[in-house]
Amino acid sequence: MTEAPSRGFPEAEFAARTDRAQAGMAALGLDGLLLMTEAEVRYFSGFHTLFWQSPTRPWFVFVPSTGKPIAIIPEIGAELMRSTWLDDIRTWSAPCPEDDGLSLLTELLAPLAQAGKSIGVMKGHETALRMPLGDYEKLTERLPGLSIADATGLVRGLRMIKSEREIEKIAHICTVGSRTFAKVPELAHQGQPLEDLFRAFRREGLAQGADDVPYLVGGADQGGYRDVISPPSRRPLAQGDILMLDTGAVWDGYYCDFDRNFAIGSADDKSRRAYDVLWRATEAGIKNARVGVTCQQLFQSMQSVIAQLDDQGGDVGRLGHGLGMQLTEWPSHAAFDQTVIEENMVLTLEPSLSYGDGRIMVHEENIVVRKDGAQLLSERAPQDLPVI
Amino acid sequence: MTEAPSRGFPEAEFAARTDRAQAGMAALGLDGLLLMTEAEVRYFSGFHTLFWQSPTRPWFVFVPSTGKPIAIIPEIGAELMRSTWLDDIRTWSAPCPEDDGLSLLTELLAPLAQAGKSIGVMKGHETALRMPLGDYEKLTERLPGLSIADATGLVRGLRMIKSEREIEKIAHICTVGSRTFAKVPELAHQGQPLEDLFRAFRREGLAQGADDVPYLVGGADQGGYRDVISPPSRRPLAQGDILMLDTGAVWDGYYCDFDRNFAIGSADDKSRRAYDVLWRATEAGIKNARVGVTCQQLFQSMQSVIAQLDDQGGDVGRLGHGLGMQLTEWPSHAAFDQTVIEENMVLTLEPSLSYGDGRIMVHEENIVVRKDGAQLLSERAPQDLPVI
Repeated sequence: MTEAPSRGFPEAEFAARTDRAQAGMAALGLDGLLLMTEAEVRYFSGFHTLFWQSPTRPWFVFVPSTGKPIAIIPEIGAELMRSTWLDDIRTWSAPCPEDDGLSLLTELLAPLAQAGKSIGVMKGHETALRMPLGDYEKLTERLPGLSIADATGLVRGLRMIKSEREIEKIAHICTVGSRTFAKVPELAHQGQPLEDLFRAFRREGLAQGADDVPYLVGGADQGGYRDVISPPSRRPLAQGDILMLDTGAVWDGYYCDFDRNFAIGSADDKSRRAYDVLWRATEAGIKNARVGVTCQQLFQSMQSVIAQLDDQGGDVGRLGHGLGMQLTEWPSHAAFDQTVIEENMVLTLEPSLSYGDGRIMVHEENIVVRKDGAQLLSERAPQDLPVI
Repeated sequence: MTEAPSRGFPEAEFAARTDRAQAGMAALGLDGLLLMTEAEVRYFSGFHTLFWQSPTRPWFVFVPSTGKPIAIIPEIGAELMRSTWLDDIRTWSAPCPEDDGLSLLTELLAPLAQAGKSIGVMKGHETALRMPLGDYEKLTERLPGLSIADATGLVRGLRMIKSEREIEKIAHICTVGSRTFAKVPELAHQGQPLEDLFRAFRREGLAQGADDVPYLVGGADQGGYRDVISPPSRRPLAQGDILMLDTGAVWDGYYCDFDRNFAIGSADDKSRRAYDVLWRATEAGIKNARVGVTCQQLFQSMQSVIAQLDDQGGDVGRLGHGLGMQLTEWPSHAAFDQTVIEENMVLTLEPSLSYGDGRIMVHEENIVVRKDGAQLLSERAPQDLPVI
């Protein structure tokens, strides 16, 4: 098992995040941020639990214009929230369909509403409203004086740039992921149902030190796979299959997200050619993922290599994305994304292509962008399609 | 490994779900249901993927007043959606912040809006809006003639009653979970950091046949634990600890959700007494979880036993809930829930209590309610607190 960094963050990190948020809020004329999604609640409070998998209860953290964030949460989370740096923790006995935190939110926000202030809520791309829409509508009806602006840009700007401690956690889980992939030649064999290989891969990831391997998708088929988001079938691996595994493993609440391709027994020429093109597209990505470059430019640098082969099928919409507390985060390496790459962004490079008969291939590596260029966090895939 | 039932569902099951939904819609005067959450999309289409862990892209299934559901989804899901029973699959190249499905939704819904019709969206308790709130607001602005009602009650009514095939899947993962818990005395030992036991438990669950063990929480401390939603610490298990593990393991997209308590080396009298009270509260729950009883009555039957000891701390808000495609589903065994228990509901019985100094204890079993009463899906916990 790989030596792990220390868990959690010092209080100063949460204070710094809050300071930066409050500076951004002031610039936008916002007197508060109302957050309710797992990553955002954790980002500002340190509240870390798998209990989010239960959809029953809403959770809220409010970042005021000055001072520490305020938690408004179900009583079941009180003990854990008291272990964070927050002081003001308001709880109710949840679930309570008639009043799941609404009275507490109303009490908190009423003075701002009366003063005609604005708060921010995340309403933009890649977000969801993690409270009942009916309750959100009730809240806005109760507080007619309150302006609610979209704070996605503000939070996105903060979360896209990782701290050294965040990078350390992601680097660690990438190392665990790389060591797990290194074992695939031992774990996989002809005649093995793909479902069993998935199970073996997950067990290996845990043995290598992952807290969990929540995301594992892939495919295997003769001369290439056709789908990259399906659960595994019972189909046995066969000579001539191209196998892909793509994993999001987790350590201390931070993800890796990369994949590896393998040929079973032997590799066909078309798949080897596709692999080579994608390997070189990834090289172009690594070279071009630099401070000051836009995501659009990074996309184009990879796309120009892919264009040597791609028949334009299998549209996955982008060639990589941000990575951190979520499996996929802003930005997107896509024609639409003008985000300028900054130091300490953690990114995936994920070129993909289609090469006839509906076959697709995807490659993926994880990097952190430093002053002098991209630093690989995943161990670089071999230059030639490995045969096992 | 336990013999597994077959995966997936025959088309007839999706057709029956859709028929029932459409009958309910007709009764409510709804001309469509717009669904966007993982469980609902899967319930009506069979679309099953871990890709939901990426928050980037919204997904939509629309149930019209007659005929099969219509999928409006990112192109990356097209191949998998084509393998379901749906015929009408409309895709866009996602992510696309400027138009993530909105044009396709507008085109679909415009005729209903022009005719002043109503559709249902899930806005109620235990739901979330899994699309950007800003996009939802844009959609409603574009379709001013469209009434949008809360369809939570309708979908809840369908999903709470499980089919035999659903029950078979839940029963299977409960068996896998029971066999995993049976190994805990071999997996756990004094001096072992709780984090390592969690990892061993997850590996064992996979070895026993779970597709994954996404949910695992617990606690261990001298004479009792104080929190039931924390991630595991590095604290080593010690003589006199009370250890609790609570897992949601998954097979073919269906969960088990139950826990087990253990004493390490020796059990203190107070913890043994708490265990005994909870074991008897669970017995009361098993006896009273019958067709025609309300969840409130079921709650009271357990609460009256718990009252023998509880000091009213550690408020978890309810004493069990529904179980299926989600770790926690409607209904709630709570004073507020008047839901009448029906045949083929799958439920957890989860009595908990507080017994001084902030110590809490939780018990949990999984049952399916049959004509003649509750049938256990989890192997019943031993009557006395097991010592390992």
